[in-house]
Amino acid sequence: MDFELYFGGLKLNFEKIWSKKTKFMRESEIRALLKWISQGNIISFGGGMPDPKNIPKKELAEITYNLLLNRGEKILQYSGTKGTLELREELLKFMGKHGIKFESPENIIITTGSQQGLDLLGRIFIDPGDTVIVEIPTYLAAINAFQVYECKFIGVPVDDEGMRTDILEEKVKEAEGRGERIKFIYTIPTCQNPSGVSMSIDRRRHLLEIASKYDLLVVEDDPYSYFLYEPVEFKYLKSMDREGRVLFMSTFSKILAPGLRVGWLAGDREAIEKFCLAKQSMDLCTSQLNQLIASEALRTGLIERQLPKIREIYREKRNTMLKSLETYMPEGCRWARPIGGMFIFVWAPENVDTKKMLKRCLEKYRVAYVPGRSFHVDGSGGNAMRLNFTYPSKEEIVEGVKRLSKAIREEIESS
Amino acid sequence: MDFELYFGGLKLNFEKIWSKKTKFMRESEIRALLKWISQGNIISFGGGMPDPKNIPKKELAEITYNLLLNRGEKILQYSGTKGTLELREELLKFMGKHGIKFESPENIIITTGSQQGLDLLGRIFIDPGDTVIVEIPTYLAAINAFQVYECKFIGVPVDDEGMRTDILEEKVKEAEGRGERIKFIYTIPTCQNPSGVSMSIDRRRHLLEIASKYDLLVVEDDPYSYFLYEPVEFKYLKSMDREGRVLFMSTFSKILAPGLRVGWLAGDREAIEKFCLAKQSMDLCTSQLNQLIASEALRTGLIERQLPKIREIYREKRNTMLKSLETYMPEGCRWARPIGGMFIFVWAPENVDTKKMLKRCLEKYRVAYVPGRSFHVDGSGGNAMRLNFTYPSKEEIVEGVKRLSKAIREEIESS
Repeated sequence: MDFELYFGGLKLNFEKIWSKKTKFMRESEIRALLKWISQGNIISFGGGMPDPKNIPKKELAEITYNLLLNRGEKILQYSGTKGTLELREELLKFMGKHGIKFESPENIIITTGSQQGLDLLGRIFIDPGDTVIVEIPTYLAAINAFQVYECKFIGVPVDDEGMRTDILEEKVKEAEGRGERIKFIYTIPTCQNPSGVSMSIDRRRHLLEIASKYDLLVVEDDPYSYFLYEPVEFKYLKSMDREGRVLFMSTFSKILAPGLRVGWLAGDREAIEKFCLAKQSMDLCTSQLNQLIASEALRTGLIERQLPKIREIYREKRNTMLKSLETYMPEGCRWARPIGGMFIFVWAPENVDTKKMLKRCLEKYRVAYVPGRSFHVDGSGGNAMRLNFTYPSKEEIVEGVKRLSKAIREEIESS
Repeated sequence: MDFELYFGGLKLNFEKIWSKKTKFMRESEIRALLKWISQGNIISFGGGMPDPKNIPKKELAEITYNLLLNRGEKILQYSGTKGTLELREELLKFMGKHGIKFESPENIIITTGSQQGLDLLGRIFIDPGDTVIVEIPTYLAAINAFQVYECKFIGVPVDDEGMRTDILEEKVKEAEGRGERIKFIYTIPTCQNPSGVSMSIDRRRHLLEIASKYDLLVVEDDPYSYFLYEPVEFKYLKSMDREGRVLFMSTFSKILAPGLRVGWLAGDREAIEKFCLAKQSMDLCTSQLNQLIASEALRTGLIERQLPKIREIYREKRNTMLKSLETYMPEGCRWARPIGGMFIFVWAPENVDTKKMLKRCLEKYRVAYVPGRSFHVDGSGGNAMRLNFTYPSKEEIVEGVKRLSKAIREEIESS
C-alpha cells in the first residue's frame, strides 16, 4: 500500500502562516529590473553595477588561487562572526589612510555586503513604530531594509550642499514633541545615492551638533567616496565624531567587486558587539574565502592601484551621460550634476509617471532605469528616475539616453 | 577654531536605543568556543567542522581560478536574489538523484549558508508569541535564530527512532486547545544534530499525517544525510510530501566547505517567492562566485566523488570516538551510538554541570565541547555535552576523550 494515500492531498494554506512582517516587504525596483536585464539586449541604467572592465579578474584569479592552494583547509572553514582578523586589520589601515581612525580591529565587523549592514541596523535598533530619519531622496534598499522592522520615516530634503540640516533640526524637535523614539539618522553624505551631491563641511558639523544636542545616533553610509570627480573638500562624518555617535559603513562592492558580498560596519565597540551577536543568527559569518580575497586586494595594493583608474573611467562616463542628457532630453527635464558616485538623478516634467513609463521603455526602447518614487519616503519623485552611468559603455550611454529621451517625449505628447 | 569643540563630548547612550529584539539574542555556545579554539593548542569537539583534510582545496583552487579568469567580469557582479540559475539547475539534478524531485529551479532559493535559511524561516513565519515545534534536543543555532523572532517553543523528545510523533500529536492538540498559532515543525530527521539518531519511516509517515491533519508546515533540515554510517533505510520527508507542506533545507558546508557560505531552501513556489522577497533586504544575493564554485563542484562530479571518501573517514572517526568513550568514560556516563552525522551526544551523571565544567576543560585540560543545555528548549540537558568527531584527528579524539573523562571524574568526585 502506498503510504502517500494516507494524506488528504490538501495543499498547505500559506496565507494563514505568513508573519505580519511580510506585509512590509517590498520588492526592490532594482531587483525586479535585474530579471529584465539578464535577458540581454537592454541598455541598463538600472543597478549600481561597476564597469565590468574595472573588475580585476586576472589579479583576483591569482590571489584566490594562491589563497586556496596554500591555506584552503583553513580558509574554507567557518570564521568568527565578527570577521577574519586579517581583513579587519587591513581595513583599519585602509580607513586610517583615508582619515578615519579607529582604536582596534574590534571596532569593525565584516558584513555580507553592506545590505546586511542595513538589515543589522534594523534588527539592533528598530522596534515597530520607532522613527528613522533619512534623506529625500535616499537609497531605496535602505528604505526597504528598515521598513521590514516596521519603522516610521521622517524625510529631510537634500539640496546642492546635501541634507538640509536646518530642516532636520525642526523635524527632530517636532518628533520629540510628539514623543517619537528616533533611533538613528541614516545619511549618505558623500556622493549621495541617488542625488549625486556631497554634504558641505558646515552641514556635516551642524548634523553632528544636532545629533549631540538631541543624543542621536548617525549612520554614515559610504560606498562612493572614492569616486569623487571634482576637487570637493570633504571630511568623513566619522572623522569629525568625538562622541562615538557615528556608525560608519562601507563595502567592497564598488571599489572591488559586488559578487564577493563583503562589506563592513565600524564604530563604537558596544555597538559592534551587539551587531556581532545579531549577525550570529543571521549567517554565522561572512564567507572567509571572500573576506581573504578582499584582504589580499588591500594588502597587495590592488585596490589602491585600481581606485584612480576606476575614478577616471567613471568621470568620463559621467561626462558622457551629462552631455547626452543636454543634447537629447526634451525641454522640461532637469538633473543635478553629480560631483561623484554612480548616478545622475533626472526629473521629467511633472505629468510624466516614470514608473508607468518604465514598462514601455523596457519593451519598446530596451532601456532600463530605476523610477524615482522608490527613493522618496514622502511619496514624491513620481516624475524622477535614477540613471547609472558606470555599468554601460559610453556608446550605450549615448544610445540609451537617446532612447529614453524619445520615450519621455512620447509621454509628454500623449498626456 | 577646531570645530570638534562644538560638541559636548557626551558618549551616545546606546542602552536607550537597542531594539527589544536584542533581549532575545543569545550568543551561541559554539561561536563563543571558536574564540578559544582559534588560540590553538585545544582539542576541539566543539563546532560541526569538516575534517580539514576532506576539503578538496586543490580542485577548488583550480575550479575557482578558471571561473574567475574566464567569467570573472560577470561572476563578480550581483546575482539575482534567488540565486544563480546554473547552481539551482545543478541542485535540481543533485536532489533528484537522491530522491527529492522538484518541478523546476524556481522551487529553489540559494541562501548564505543554511543559517540564513533559519533566519528566513523566522522572518517569513514568526510573529511574537507564535509557536514553533522543535525536537528535544535540537540544533542550538536554530533555537537562537527562531528565538530572535520572539516565538514560544514546544519541544518533542527524540528517541532511537527519532521524534516521538505520538507525543507530537498530543502537544499539537494541547497547543491548538490553548489557541496557539503553530507556525511550523522544525526537524532534522536524518542523522539528527545533536542526538545522531534517524527518524524511522513509520514515524516520518506519522509526522506527515499529523501535519496534514492539523494543516501544519514541516521544515526538514538536512545537512547530514550524506553521512550515514550504517545501512539504515530512510526516505526524505520531502520525498513523501504530496501536499507541499515540507520545506527542505540543506547546505554545502558539510559536503564541500563551510567557508563558502552557500546553502539552499527548496519547496513550494509560493514560499520560495516569499523567501526571495525577504532575502532582498537581508543581503541582496549570495556571493555569485561562491555559488558558481558550488555549482562547478556538482557539475564536475567533485562532490559525488568526495562523498564516499568523506563518509569512510567520518565512520572511522566515529568508531574511534565510540571506542574511546567506552574505554575511558567513568561509570554513570552514557551516549547514543550515532548512525550518522558529525556528533556523539554524551550524558554525564546528573550532578555534573557541563556548562560549569567547560571552563575547567578549556583552561586545564585544553579540550572543548558544547554543553548540552543549549540544545534543549525545555531547560534540560544540563549534564549533557555534544562531541564532534569529524574535525579532530583520530589521535586527538583518543587524547581528547581521555582528558574529558578525567575532568568528568574530577567533577563526580568533588560533588
